[in-house]
Amino acid sequence: MLNETAAGVYIISATPFTGTGEIDYASTDQLVEFYLEHGVSGMTILGMMGEAPKLSSDEALAFMSHMLKRVAGRVPVIVGVSNAGIANIASLSHAAMDQGAAGVMIAPPRGLGTDEKQHGFLSQCCEALGPDVPVCYQDFPLATGVSLSAELFARMVWDFEQLVMLKHEDWPGLNKLTRIRTLERRRVSILCGNGGIFLPEEMARGADGAMTGFAFPEMLVAVVRLCNEGAYDAASDLFDAYLPIIRLEQQPGAGLAIRKEILRRRGALKCNAARMPGPTLTREDHTEITRLMARLDRRLIDLKGS
Amino acid sequence: MLNETAAGVYIISATPFTGTGEIDYASTDQLVEFYLEHGVSGMTILGMMGEAPKLSSDEALAFMSHMLKRVAGRVPVIVGVSNAGIANIASLSHAAMDQGAAGVMIAPPRGLGTDEKQHGFLSQCCEALGPDVPVCYQDFPLATGVSLSAELFARMVWDFEQLVMLKHEDWPGLNKLTRIRTLERRRVSILCGNGGIFLPEEMARGADGAMTGFAFPEMLVAVVRLCNEGAYDAASDLFDAYLPIIRLEQQPGAGLAIRKEILRRRGALKCNAARMPGPTLTREDHTEITRLMARLDRRLIDLKGS
Amino acid sequence: MLNETAAGVYIISATPFTGTGEIDYASTDQLVEFYLEHGVSGMTILGMMGEAPKLSSDEALAFMSHMLKRVAGRVPVIVGVSNAGIANIASLSHAAMDQGAAGVMIAPPRGLGTDEKQHGFLSQCCEALGPDVPVCYQDFPLATGVSLSAELFARMVWDFEQLVMLKHEDWPGLNKLTRIRTLERRRVSILCGNGGIFLPEEMARGADGAMTGFAFPEMLVAVVRLCNEGAYDAASDLFDAYLPIIRLEQQPGAGLAIRKEILRRRGALKCNAARMPGPTLTREDHTEITRLMARLDRRLIDLKGS
Amino acid sequence: MLNETAAGVYIISATPFTGTGEIDYASTDQLVEFYLEHGVSGMTILGMMGEAPKLSSDEALAFMSHMLKRVAGRVPVIVGVSNAGIANIASLSHAAMDQGAAGVMIAPPRGLGTDEKQHGFLSQCCEALGPDVPVCYQDFPLATGVSLSAELFARMVWDFEQLVMLKHEDWPGLNKLTRIRTLERRRVSILCGNGGIFLPEEMARGADGAMTGFAFPEMLVAVVRLCNEGAYDAASDLFDAYLPIIRLEQQPGAGLAIRKEILRRRGALKCNAARMPGPTLTREDHTEITRLMARLDRRLIDLKGS
Repeated sequence: MLNETAAGVYIISATPFTGTGEIDYASTDQLVEFYLEHGVSGMTILGMMGEAPKLSSDEALAFMSHMLKRVAGRVPVIVGVSNAGIANIASLSHAAMDQGAAGVMIAPPRGLGTDEKQHGFLSQCCEALGPDVPVCYQDFPLATGVSLSAELFARMVWDFEQLVMLKHEDWPGLNKLTRIRTLERRRVSILCGNGGIFLPEEMARGADGAMTGFAFPEMLVAVVRLCNEGAYDAASDLFDAYLPIIRLEQQPGAGLAIRKEILRRRGALKCNAARMPGPTLTREDHTEITRLMARLDRRLIDLKGS
Repeated sequence: MLNETAAGVYIISATPFTGTGEIDYASTDQLVEFYLEHGVSGMTILGMMGEAPKLSSDEALAFMSHMLKRVAGRVPVIVGVSNAGIANIASLSHAAMDQGAAGVMIAPPRGLGTDEKQHGFLSQCCEALGPDVPVCYQDFPLATGVSLSAELFARMVWDFEQLVMLKHEDWPGLNKLTRIRTLERRRVSILCGNGGIFLPEEMARGADGAMTGFAFPEMLVAVVRLCNEGAYDAASDLFDAYLPIIRLEQQPGAGLAIRKEILRRRGALKCNAARMPGPTLTREDHTEITRLMARLDRRLIDLKGS
Repeated sequence: MLNETAAGVYIISATPFTGTGEIDYASTDQLVEFYLEHGVSGMTILGMMGEAPKLSSDEALAFMSHMLKRVAGRVPVIVGVSNAGIANIASLSHAAMDQGAAGVMIAPPRGLGTDEKQHGFLSQCCEALGPDVPVCYQDFPLATGVSLSAELFARMVWDFEQLVMLKHEDWPGLNKLTRIRTLERRRVSILCGNGGIFLPEEMARGADGAMTGFAFPEMLVAVVRLCNEGAYDAASDLFDAYLPIIRLEQQPGAGLAIRKEILRRRGALKCNAARMPGPTLTREDHTEITRLMARLDRRLIDLKGS
Repeated sequence: MLNETAAGVYIISATPFTGTGEIDYASTDQLVEFYLEHGVSGMTILGMMGEAPKLSSDEALAFMSHMLKRVAGRVPVIVGVSNAGIANIASLSHAAMDQGAAGVMIAPPRGLGTDEKQHGFLSQCCEALGPDVPVCYQDFPLATGVSLSAELFARMVWDFEQLVMLKHEDWPGLNKLTRIRTLERRRVSILCGNGGIFLPEEMARGADGAMTGFAFPEMLVAVVRLCNEGAYDAASDLFDAYLPIIRLEQQPGAGLAIRKEILRRRGALKCNAARMPGPTLTREDHTEITRLMARLDRRLIDLKGS
């Protein structure tokens, strides 16, 4: 069961599709092994980056069951359950927990413009879930249009005991992270998103790790480890080598296609297809990916040499 | 099958729930009879006002099947199929058409900020649907964040033959409606939303009727008929009597609770419950509804007397 | 000086332009007399509806000076000072107060997505204004993108003594108004906007009047008076007669052109021009205005007869 | 006069303030020399990053006059003239051109949701400016909420001869840039914003340079030069060294404070103050800046050594 001590890298899993748009379970198994081999501490499925809103309910349930079976007992799995309806959130959450999920992740729906509305929404969720479902709250204003203050988060942590984790994805978010750590009366786990683009700074400010889908999870894992050891410069040296690619993957929308293509090139996915409507890659995109991956290889060799 | 000549009132059906939040099929049957008795020309189900995003996929399919069976052969039924994924839109559409729907309604997803993106989205939809599924396009910027120009609509009508209807719900929208009628090279059906709050003016500018969920469908029906007969003043006299309530129901979010309560008071629904997260009624809301319904009754008596 | 007891109708004044887009001061004087003759209790200038953002700073200052001189000693004048910069807000406010304004109106800038940010913004404003400038806070989410909860407003009223008035313009806003009255520990003046489209209900829920620019201020004045006398039905009878026009004027953007044209037809403005970019009237708009004004005249005769 | 051949780095100038919030002209002169010494090809003043909306009109005019005199005959100056009113845009533009500006920059106002509205707005601007004022169009959807397709831009370039430059700041924007170059029938200058975070890729896709305010203009200058020489790897080596800081500066809102502080540390500004409401730096921000600037120094030494 997920709790406040969760740390490390919870990789946001891609959802593999065939060229004709079906979920590819063989490719899924391969992807799971790829993530585990690269040292992730947990997995998050059915997130935005997992294209969950473009799955049918049946597909989402089937994919979830498959993943939970496949990963069971190896690392904890968090299931994204964001939905326009509280009842849907509850039923998917209960199905997930019954099948072995460690917890669920909820992003607020568009339009919660006041602290009261956001608190009320999470209150309704927690009541519908029951007290035994651990919750990770996703704070991603660029995608949801909903803003969360450190003050409100501290209040929600105090009011809802099952809220054990924040997916920190506000932009800018560094001072908010510091402020959350200052205000909190119960320490929760904070894992960072946004492709990890501020990960070294976030670790220095009190994050516990990353929850993002970057196509090189081994970098995220190493950076978190090095930061925990206080080796911030070594962490930054490694991080900086990947930063040109992080920047490319972090682009809203288009980044998903780039991420899937890199995973494909690394042998983690059979096909780079994203579901429609979704981004596709141009010839120029491919050229840039090839060039940046080659530059990364050279840079990693330099780093080892130094 | 829905086509460009569709006219009259296509009522947006509420989705009846029990007090515990389950779909209430007995109440649904009652609601269908209520709508038909009050003279609607068609029905639209699983729209935003039908709380479609808060149903599970299974519930949506079951409700659709029930409605299509119940209404079959009486009036045409349009099924709302808006979804984040093209594949989901296609599969729900095909299920609907197989079970006797007259056509489907699609609203663009958030974020289509340019004409090209909006055209591209509808193009993907039409390709996935195949040419035999008639489409009503919902233009509701307040809810979707997507704006449609008359020029773009004319272009889409020209490019996509199966686009036979516009649910006109922009605000302000009167001059746009006039402009669409000026630019069009193929005349499509235009039915007006927004609770009907500009219906007499819209009829004068070339609309073919209304597609909205106002709790007094008989007014919409009479206004459309009177306008078609050129009796604009009689239409406006009737319309004006209901306008204080239209205004109340048209409020975003809160209006749904008011609408369901009025339908309940009129015997069309067993329960006014909306699914969470959703609006609830306060004591003051009830007082206002009571007062405005009483005022309407008096006004209708006056109108008959005059 | 504006204080918590302010009540009645504070008309939002239009800014009169000549056909070539210059401020027309002769027409302005005429407009002032029109408003005063129709019984307004106060005036608000340089609001959104006054096209303030389209004036140059010099024009805004000149128009303000002219109006303050013209209205001095007759009714209180509130000056809209919303601006992207705190320093600009302060300097315009101090100029206004020096020249006899009763207070200033501030709307929050776009992007204040949390309670903390909104509170912080008003705190910066109050500090820059100094304690002697009475403030009316404009709550108009449709235009600003900023939402205000009753809880936050109560907190701001408590923290900022100079906050003496709310321009209530949320939509839906009725239950929020009730909740503000329930939560408040210091009673402030609440004047309602949105063209007055919910004015009778808002008066019943505790509003003190209206602050809006409806082209028939005498209706607003009478409705507020009748509601204060407890004659809600008489108030609603009058209100309902104007509702078809209120509805037209309340349209975002386009409504301003309609309002200015009606004011012109009533002899209150010499020219209906709005500054670019702005709405213009089509032939169909003119037809609708003519028709609705004629219908209003007949309805008012009926009302007197009854 | 600005024309389609403009290229290189047009630095977006900060506006220097004293600690009490006044424009600091001594610091301004120093800043101008800093930019010129570091090799910029042009300067853009009164942009968003220049805090233009927080200046009073008089301050904006005074700052513009000062800058135009100071820079006259050294490099071309573009003046940001974005405003809610066309008349204000025109008068500021004419004042700028009279005093020696090379051209003006216009960003569309919020709410232009259709191609027609955006085209109409630019058409009104061009008519008000007259044909002799060269225009740079700023495409920055994250700040304006307005999206521009390559198709629409090509159409506007064709229709408005004075449109000679695009400030390319969409995100993601790489494929759009390629598409603009494919569609254009008249080649215009494209300078890239967003802190330069995709500059090497943008140069490879046909950009002519950068228009952004990054605190190390010498990097932008060198990267543009190297790319023009086809030395993309050398360009990327240099770019990558600065990327950790670019990333920090590119944060919306907060980035401005970081940029001003780095300029201060480099001796280009006397004071890092931004006008209220605006970001301020925390102790942790200072630590990060110190650390990243030290890392940059080491990296540059390594680069020279290699």
